[in-house]
Amino acid sequence: MAGNTRDSGQSVTARALAVLGAFDVEHRQLTLSEISRRTGLPLATAHRLIRELESWRALDRDAHGNYHIGLRLWEIGLLAPPAGRLREIALPFMQDLYEVTRQNIHLAIRDGFDAVYVEKLTGHRSVPIISRTGGRLPMHATGVGKALLAHQSDEFVQAFCERPLERPTRYTIVERGRLLRELDQVRKRGYATTSEEMTLGAFSVAVPILDESGAATAALGIVIHTVRADASKLVPPLRTACEGIERRLAEGADDPVTTR
Amino acid sequence: MAGNTRDSGQSVTARALAVLGAFDVEHRQLTLSEISRRTGLPLATAHRLIRELESWRALDRDAHGNYHIGLRLWEIGLLAPPAGRLREIALPFMQDLYEVTRQNIHLAIRDGFDAVYVEKLTGHRSVPIISRTGGRLPMHATGVGKALLAHQSDEFVQAFCERPLERPTRYTIVERGRLLRELDQVRKRGYATTSEEMTLGAFSVAVPILDESGAATAALGIVIHTVRADASKLVPPLRTACEGIERRLAEGADDPVTTR
Repeated sequence: MAGNTRDSGQSVTARALAVLGAFDVEHRQLTLSEISRRTGLPLATAHRLIRELESWRALDRDAHGNYHIGLRLWEIGLLAPPAGRLREIALPFMQDLYEVTRQNIHLAIRDGFDAVYVEKLTGHRSVPIISRTGGRLPMHATGVGKALLAHQSDEFVQAFCERPLERPTRYTIVERGRLLRELDQVRKRGYATTSEEMTLGAFSVAVPILDESGAATAALGIVIHTVRADASKLVPPLRTACEGIERRLAEGADDPVTTR
Repeated sequence: MAGNTRDSGQSVTARALAVLGAFDVEHRQLTLSEISRRTGLPLATAHRLIRELESWRALDRDAHGNYHIGLRLWEIGLLAPPAGRLREIALPFMQDLYEVTRQNIHLAIRDGFDAVYVEKLTGHRSVPIISRTGGRLPMHATGVGKALLAHQSDEFVQAFCERPLERPTRYTIVERGRLLRELDQVRKRGYATTSEEMTLGAFSVAVPILDESGAATAALGIVIHTVRADASKLVPPLRTACEGIERRLAEGADDPVTTR
């Protein structure tokens, strides 16, 4: 309660958060010494913080003594806006799309320069792809990403293009001029496509979910095998779903659906 | 870095976690003064902690100045075991069940005395029910809960029954003897049912997902309208799905799928 100066308080919170930040999709389980190494915290400090995080269940420990993100943190995390209203409204529409296509169905939002995957439905017959719920992928290389990027301000798109752009495959569009023309097309047609730009063998179509000002709140996409690539069949059900979601979102209060 | 005694360190971490714990499903957005009130922290302390949590994006702030759980915390939370391997393996099987039934499909684990809903698929034609991904419900009142409870140790079941049991509807089984007989039935038949025990108008069937020792790792359930209640049609596809999930889980490493 008392006895902390402001600086020491800041640094303790930052260190506790650093322990949580040591976990990522390649490091879902860590030992004490791995946490210490990945955070740069001395073993004793890491141990003390871990014990506190564990008692709150921000971390849980398995039978082998390895730490992983705790169930309570998962529960609290699901209170974040994209996991709430947007996902709840979108999910039945995504189910409809899944029933029609039996392929990967994505719901994504923009965060910084990334497309963040809020939900992914996938079945046994869907083409295997890298996306996962809670994952991030570059906007210029994905269908949902291009749909989102095409509905940002000119300043944002300029800032986006000024950075070096990742090239996950040889088909990824990284030339500024070509990307800008592509985004122009997306706006005109009302949908985005990618052909092996993120994953070889995969073709995607995505439609933005727009708010009343015309800004993209989110995007809905379908990823199929390249051999079945045919946007003309996928765009109408995607549009229907996005219009349904837009209507339901507009009905609601001013609950935030996205963040930054 | 320096200057913190062990006690002050503990209390700062605990206070930062208390700020996160101020949010729940009824309080997804909070103002600074609400956070201060709900945590019992002085405004200045709450403000300082919030600023640190916000800079790491454990919290995000909307255009109106309200705080909500931040996108980074959501991303980190999804690294928790139930959201990882178990969910990824189960999801395509859940999609198959959804396609057959178009009803609510649940994947739940046990945590303490609760059934925790790891995933819920739902469509436009599914019966409206209270469950949500990341939510908790009492085990004795839900299908997935009874399926989980029936495969716990005798000591656990005894401790479960010794507490006062919630009664969400007048059909909820709260008498100890009746509940124990019901759990016996679940073990014999291999599936659990509920009829309006959690939600009026809803009927559920659930099958446990067992590990090699016969303990329940998770449970898979379907919730339909009471008027369509017919376990005999739902049990075979549920069993097929659970067996598929059990097989895939057994193939894997010793990655934890549940927690406590």
